Amino acid sequence: MIMTDQLMYGGDYNPEQWLDRPDILETDIEYMKKAKINTVTLGVFSWAVLEPEEGQYHLDWLEDIVDRLYSNGISVILATPSGARPKWMSDKYPEVLRVSEDRRRALFGKRHNHCYTSPVYRQKVATINQKLAERFGNHPAIKLWHISNEYGGECHCQLCQEAFRNWLKNRYQSIDELNKKWYTRFWSHTYHSFDTIESPSSIGEYDLHGLKLDWKRFVTDQTVDFIENEIAAIRKGGATQPTTVNMMYDYLGLNYEKLAKVVDIISWDSYPLWHKTKEVEIARDNGLQHDFMRSLKKKPFLLMESCPSATNWQGISKLKKPGLLSAASWQAIAHGSDSVLYFQIRQGRGSSEKFHGAVIDHSGRDDTRVFKEVTAMGEQLEMLQEVKGTKCKADIAIIYDTENRWALEDAQGPRNNGLFYHEAVMKSYSAYRKLGYNVDVINEAQDLSDYKIVVAPMLYLFREKIETRLEAFVKNGGHLVMTYWSGVVDEWDRCFLGDTPYGLTQVLGVRRTEIDALYDGETNFIQGTNNERYECQYLCELTQNEGAKTLMTYGKDFYKDELAIAENLYGKGKAYYVGVDAEQAFYDTFYKKVVKEAHLQPILSIETPEGVEVTSRVSEKHEYIFIQNYNTEPVDMPLDGVGEVILGSYRDGIGAYETVILKK
Amino acid sequence: MIMTDQLMYGGDYNPEQWLDRPDILETDIEYMKKAKINTVTLGVFSWAVLEPEEGQYHLDWLEDIVDRLYSNGISVILATPSGARPKWMSDKYPEVLRVSEDRRRALFGKRHNHCYTSPVYRQKVATINQKLAERFGNHPAIKLWHISNEYGGECHCQLCQEAFRNWLKNRYQSIDELNKKWYTRFWSHTYHSFDTIESPSSIGEYDLHGLKLDWKRFVTDQTVDFIENEIAAIRKGGATQPTTVNMMYDYLGLNYEKLAKVVDIISWDSYPLWHKTKEVEIARDNGLQHDFMRSLKKKPFLLMESCPSATNWQGISKLKKPGLLSAASWQAIAHGSDSVLYFQIRQGRGSSEKFHGAVIDHSGRDDTRVFKEVTAMGEQLEMLQEVKGTKCKADIAIIYDTENRWALEDAQGPRNNGLFYHEAVMKSYSAYRKLGYNVDVINEAQDLSDYKIVVAPMLYLFREKIETRLEAFVKNGGHLVMTYWSGVVDEWDRCFLGDTPYGLTQVLGVRRTEIDALYDGETNFIQGTNNERYECQYLCELTQNEGAKTLMTYGKDFYKDELAIAENLYGKGKAYYVGVDAEQAFYDTFYKKVVKEAHLQPILSIETPEGVEVTSRVSEKHEYIFIQNYNTEPVDMPLDGVGEVILGSYRDGIGAYETVILKK
Amino acid sequence: MIMTDQLMYGGDYNPEQWLDRPDILETDIEYMKKAKINTVTLGVFSWAVLEPEEGQYHLDWLEDIVDRLYSNGISVILATPSGARPKWMSDKYPEVLRVSEDRRRALFGKRHNHCYTSPVYRQKVATINQKLAERFGNHPAIKLWHISNEYGGECHCQLCQEAFRNWLKNRYQSIDELNKKWYTRFWSHTYHSFDTIESPSSIGEYDLHGLKLDWKRFVTDQTVDFIENEIAAIRKGGATQPTTVNMMYDYLGLNYEKLAKVVDIISWDSYPLWHKTKEVEIARDNGLQHDFMRSLKKKPFLLMESCPSATNWQGISKLKKPGLLSAASWQAIAHGSDSVLYFQIRQGRGSSEKFHGAVIDHSGRDDTRVFKEVTAMGEQLEMLQEVKGTKCKADIAIIYDTENRWALEDAQGPRNNGLFYHEAVMKSYSAYRKLGYNVDVINEAQDLSDYKIVVAPMLYLFREKIETRLEAFVKNGGHLVMTYWSGVVDEWDRCFLGDTPYGLTQVLGVRRTEIDALYDGETNFIQGTNNERYECQYLCELTQNEGAKTLMTYGKDFYKDELAIAENLYGKGKAYYVGVDAEQAFYDTFYKKVVKEAHLQPILSIETPEGVEVTSRVSEKHEYIFIQNYNTEPVDMPLDGVGEVILGSYRDGIGAYETVILKK
Repeated sequence: MIMTDQLMYGGDYNPEQWLDRPDILETDIEYMKKAKINTVTLGVFSWAVLEPEEGQYHLDWLEDIVDRLYSNGISVILATPSGARPKWMSDKYPEVLRVSEDRRRALFGKRHNHCYTSPVYRQKVATINQKLAERFGNHPAIKLWHISNEYGGECHCQLCQEAFRNWLKNRYQSIDELNKKWYTRFWSHTYHSFDTIESPSSIGEYDLHGLKLDWKRFVTDQTVDFIENEIAAIRKGGATQPTTVNMMYDYLGLNYEKLAKVVDIISWDSYPLWHKTKEVEIARDNGLQHDFMRSLKKKPFLLMESCPSATNWQGISKLKKPGLLSAASWQAIAHGSDSVLYFQIRQGRGSSEKFHGAVIDHSGRDDTRVFKEVTAMGEQLEMLQEVKGTKCKADIAIIYDTENRWALEDAQGPRNNGLFYHEAVMKSYSAYRKLGYNVDVINEAQDLSDYKIVVAPMLYLFREKIETRLEAFVKNGGHLVMTYWSGVVDEWDRCFLGDTPYGLTQVLGVRRTEIDALYDGETNFIQGTNNERYECQYLCELTQNEGAKTLMTYGKDFYKDELAIAENLYGKGKAYYVGVDAEQAFYDTFYKKVVKEAHLQPILSIETPEGVEVTSRVSEKHEYIFIQNYNTEPVDMPLDGVGEVILGSYRDGIGAYETVILKK
Repeated sequence: MIMTDQLMYGGDYNPEQWLDRPDILETDIEYMKKAKINTVTLGVFSWAVLEPEEGQYHLDWLEDIVDRLYSNGISVILATPSGARPKWMSDKYPEVLRVSEDRRRALFGKRHNHCYTSPVYRQKVATINQKLAERFGNHPAIKLWHISNEYGGECHCQLCQEAFRNWLKNRYQSIDELNKKWYTRFWSHTYHSFDTIESPSSIGEYDLHGLKLDWKRFVTDQTVDFIENEIAAIRKGGATQPTTVNMMYDYLGLNYEKLAKVVDIISWDSYPLWHKTKEVEIARDNGLQHDFMRSLKKKPFLLMESCPSATNWQGISKLKKPGLLSAASWQAIAHGSDSVLYFQIRQGRGSSEKFHGAVIDHSGRDDTRVFKEVTAMGEQLEMLQEVKGTKCKADIAIIYDTENRWALEDAQGPRNNGLFYHEAVMKSYSAYRKLGYNVDVINEAQDLSDYKIVVAPMLYLFREKIETRLEAFVKNGGHLVMTYWSGVVDEWDRCFLGDTPYGLTQVLGVRRTEIDALYDGETNFIQGTNNERYECQYLCELTQNEGAKTLMTYGKDFYKDELAIAENLYGKGKAYYVGVDAEQAFYDTFYKKVVKEAHLQPILSIETPEGVEVTSRVSEKHEYIFIQNYNTEPVDMPLDGVGEVILGSYRDGIGAYETVILKK
Repeated sequence: MIMTDQLMYGGDYNPEQWLDRPDILETDIEYMKKAKINTVTLGVFSWAVLEPEEGQYHLDWLEDIVDRLYSNGISVILATPSGARPKWMSDKYPEVLRVSEDRRRALFGKRHNHCYTSPVYRQKVATINQKLAERFGNHPAIKLWHISNEYGGECHCQLCQEAFRNWLKNRYQSIDELNKKWYTRFWSHTYHSFDTIESPSSIGEYDLHGLKLDWKRFVTDQTVDFIENEIAAIRKGGATQPTTVNMMYDYLGLNYEKLAKVVDIISWDSYPLWHKTKEVEIARDNGLQHDFMRSLKKKPFLLMESCPSATNWQGISKLKKPGLLSAASWQAIAHGSDSVLYFQIRQGRGSSEKFHGAVIDHSGRDDTRVFKEVTAMGEQLEMLQEVKGTKCKADIAIIYDTENRWALEDAQGPRNNGLFYHEAVMKSYSAYRKLGYNVDVINEAQDLSDYKIVVAPMLYLFREKIETRLEAFVKNGGHLVMTYWSGVVDEWDRCFLGDTPYGLTQVLGVRRTEIDALYDGETNFIQGTNNERYECQYLCELTQNEGAKTLMTYGKDFYKDELAIAENLYGKGKAYYVGVDAEQAFYDTFYKKVVKEAHLQPILSIETPEGVEVTSRVSEKHEYIFIQNYNTEPVDMPLDGVGEVILGSYRDGIGAYETVILKK
């Protein structure tokens, strides 16, 4: 489905807060046009205005605004309103209110506060969605349906318990099978029937990892089912536009892999803590998320929300320094976004988000620093529409898997005080990005065959026959990098019996014997044959070498001189094993060797200076190379002859926070 | 109303704990006389002894003690017993038990544990109060009624919910008006009727600031109503003595501005963390509270509780070093107290406060260090009765407003990890105190016309037309100092639209454009034209200069060289704007300029040495100047000719922790 | 009762998790024999397999395993299964589920999760126990009954409330007596009848220390009663073997003094945080627990659980370095254990303890480092059976009392942020251990007459007429060391009136006047007449010298030069008073003086090197001296002629983590 020919530019807009101020609504459109805004998101949280009393639908105000936006050249992403339900509903049907894990029914309040199972709620959502679709399904302004908002959370009410039990029945067929998979003979936890199973609870069962994993899977599936119910209703109402759900940074409440399958377009809300540490580190962390989102469908995605100034809900709500808004926006485009959208266009006057940065702030002025930067960005985007729809191509994939993380971080194991999975993934990601490569960030279920290098950091839980697929990948010539604490448990968090990493000891040429945890502050080091030496921390695995080549060994403790880093030829490919949580410098050097052995070329043939990010998108005819300087000083880069400069300049170096785009 | 001609000296006394030990009761009176104690507070928490079974009143024991005290020259402050109710009451009428914000009814226990709305509880309190008044209303020993104890806390029971809904109906008349003021279109929070509104709750609504502010206002009003019910009962019983409620340090559960209106005399309980940091800093922090309490009625107040030794409920219960008891006691007098009262006379044997310092400890001796210091203080007070009833006069007022703080600290804004309002107020207060001025500490509702300088630090919420009154104050010749993050929201925490600080941009000559938050540990600095330089942290406001004179500018970041401190002539007065959270040294220097420009003279014409506090009270004929040395070494001060020395000496310098009083 | 002639070696074994893997069950026995394992514990948490449906008992599988073990020379400790009940029971009888202190009934889950009062639960436990006893009561393999597992926790259901009220009625007879003991006139807490008393609760009463102490006593008594119910059932079933309950490190939920009385043998589960700080410090801390456990009956005890590798439930689950397993095992023997038992033999595949170290890990190999170390230990033990049953003899006792700790740490007093009772006890214990003495660790109820030195650190609560017994101890020639904050309250946490330490001021020659608390980081020092000087922190007591000899005085603060450490001759003995929390070096020096004055000789006549522990056991004929080197380097010790070397060698020094045993 094609939504629009344009890179979308704009953001969330809440005119329902200003219906008594037509002067402001008029000014808003004038300002949007000035800032080159071509798209706004309407209807998020508007239910109380759309259906102020049960069954009374007030859609005229919304149509009026959509019409006026459209007549001013502004497109609309229309949200279904299920992100927050009106108060009359919970007053009349308390079943729509969530029940917390400790089994207490919530009172009305907050947002994202409904039971995903409640038939009443599903019906109410279906009806309002259908009404919206009937009215706006064919409106030319509407380009995309924004289903609800930032899905998340869970409900433990009796309706959900029943749904969970049915889900389990369907999954296991017999209670004996469930007991086996959940290993319930431990601590006499054997279940006698599906009918009395309860979701995990701090006042009940909280240590049975099989139950907890399945509950998380159920919550995802139930949410997906709810989304499908929402989409079915807009389709029933006649809407033909594509759909999206806006996702969140590193969100662990849902497995986005499943949500991605039921919507047409991936979108997400990006709120990095800019200026907290070195800018480029924050950019890389945010880049990983962009790449994770893009890789969900391996298609362009949308940056659905970002903040034009300071947020209001972080501990410290820092202003974006001049230039950062542009850098962050171009980063999204560079990583595959076809939009730059802000939350929000006009700042609300009251309640909890009133100080969230906005294109138009409480002063109502268009001469603010933020408004000027938004306008400048709008003007640049308008000139570079050709990158819309272009693809990102990566030869390297890093597995960053939600189910793995659920199990890894929930299990009581070597380091209950911190395993640092996100950090482990970031170390590999950062190293490749510093070397100037695009990277896909994938889950265990995704196809590996297009890649030259696959990295599997801390892949504790094996599912989807990953061991077989990784074996085939290496056998066929791929380069696999696997780290410590991988291949330990199956899909139910049951330890594999026999040698581990499960199914891969021959591929890797090593088997794990023990894993040592280091106290916070305690370190070891690893050393190679050329006296190179890297510090390591947190986790040190002890392995038995069963045919691999030793690359590095431990520097101290009782496992001094034992194998820490290994490589092993297998089939047409090669497998590397990293047995220890080593410092970034190790990965930076190690991956130079790996890319060389895998015969990969970086995006640019020259070395990337510290603090600079290089990313590329390709169309059928062209390559667009984005070079972003995240330093607070200009940097020199000899780019002559690489391609046509279509944004920025690099004659006197690339300026602080500046983006240069080369077309090749 | 005049209670007594004396400075009250004594404290809380709980003879009901010792009724089986007449020998101890006898010794107590003997010891009190030895220590020059002239007043004790009786009846706090005595309900279970006064009414051991429902409707059975046992007041004889109390009358007996009152008589014996009186016949020994000791007056009585009599408490109503509502600070803790007897167990039979909650056993029979569970409605008197509080319901917590997460909607759980408490069990019997603790103290200050009752529902302020419960008709049963109000009736029970009225009856016991009336009985007490009938018995003691004309007793010559009784000088003052101590209504309940340290009012605080809240109840969320259905009775309170109904009372809250009625309070809201009365305030807003229509639900539409409430929705508008609470800005409920945000997140679809629109209320359909008053009848289903619920108080704020962690399991319901906790982000709607309008609701939360109104709930806090309701809690104060309901408490005030409860107090009025208590007082009405003692009046009905024939009592004619004045009333007080004992307030607490920086207590945010109630707006004391409202409580002050329904009692005759202000009193409070002071428990500083002496010896934790530099003594003078603790003294100043405590001084601010004294001044806040005194300013509530601009009349002498009472120090109702203080600890003669270590407390028992602080994290570290440190002994008061020799001399500190005297210094702390004289500080109260200096700031306007007409009493020095301790908690407590005799230490209880059991339960949670058994280790709270007392005049008579478990040893039962009168040769303890504490008893001797208490006695010495009693002797000094007895000689200086003439300061009783004298006033404190200040030309400088600092606004330290409870409603402002409620809103400021609840809003999600630039620094959710800490805004430091108390600290900001203290910086101005300390600077003036170091310069040797008395200071009033007032709320937004109080009259400004008597002051020469008004300081408004972080006055985020404007109410009571403060912007108009501040404008008039400057226009008429006053000097106003306003800081960053002022004039942002109205009484409902709704942002003002247009330029801010609201209504004062012409007075100040600047308008706010942005506010930057600094991470913990991050700093900036400000610099003036004479190379003076001060560090700043946490919050840096960016302002547009609209006619003010620039005093200082920022030293770094993207707003380097932009305006940080400004002054502006307006009408006959002058307004200063402090846009940044600067270090104490800035305020110390800056206020030298302000007092000079406002033509103010300090209490003493000589400079105050580091660590010394100077305060004054005035009668119609005399000025009493209190000079207190909070250093651990003596200091020299040339005070010859200032006045008659009526306490202490300064010939060889003023001793550590010593107080000198000069009469002029 | 004699269980067995052997030192028991083995651990927990859970064959019910492997019933579908007969190959594994077979391998397990083969491996056990290889490792010289002679004992396993069966049946902990097996209820769901033993009684899969109500009233259906499946014991055959267990008998089969017991038979096979026995036929392979392996004995069995058989557990009753009450540590975790099957799900059918709470589904049918919800009363068996616990109610938390905030009055919420738990859902099914976790373990140790039952109400100790519930008649249904007691009946179900009695029945299964009796069934087990009927089947295994005469089985020659069964040497010991392991009653339940790690008793702990509490229940606040209505059944427990009633039981508590009856317990109180029985204890106090009249409600007036209870009110007096609990000091309920404070805050009007007077109880009118036993019938409405509620257990302590965060939503009710949590500050009434008398109530809280009695509740803890009730929980212990109710648990003891439950244990007696369990044991009665196995006796009714015909079992004649001895019983034990496995206790835990420093567990405060129960007073083990009472549990010790109803079982035949003491056992405990030891999981030190090896390698976290200096090894010898961890060994000493663990040694204190061994000595506490042994002193409960002054007989050999059992090490019931220990980890052969890393645990899985600590914050950091560190591997045991090579040799540590042996050192920790021999330490248990040295301190009086007649067993070395591990948790567990074979690692489970799933649920929360799957990564807990085990003799046989998931790899299923017998060539792991851990398996080899377990085997080596087994071989050593097999050769040293003669130490079985030998006694430990100590002339020094330190009082480390659970009821004292309950009261001390619950009272709101001088340092609510930390009193450091455990640390205070450890300082005395460590000093004596460094000097090479065995130490008993006793409670206030235990007999003192066999000791030469008794240490009473922070003995805040006096019970069991301890003041009289300590007085007699000194009068008869004993040496008493008492520290600050002793003799403050009676059994109900009511302060003693008059001079303190209660009843001992003449014995000690001093009385307490005040106690000062120091902020964290704040220090004072004490100094003696020979310029020795020690730092002190946290608590400094001020005392009045009433005839004692001053040993040391304070170095600063207002009590500079006042008495800090005193000694006093009394009767035929001597009493020392340590008024301050001094550093370890003080105790190390001070106790050299004390042992000298008490004429005690250490185990070895030579000085113990840093990091070495010396401990001894005696039979009627021999003394066995255990010398353990906890340093990571060998140490030299001249041991020639002391005795026969029956384990290890010391010719070239004693190796790191090595144990040498001398027989004399």
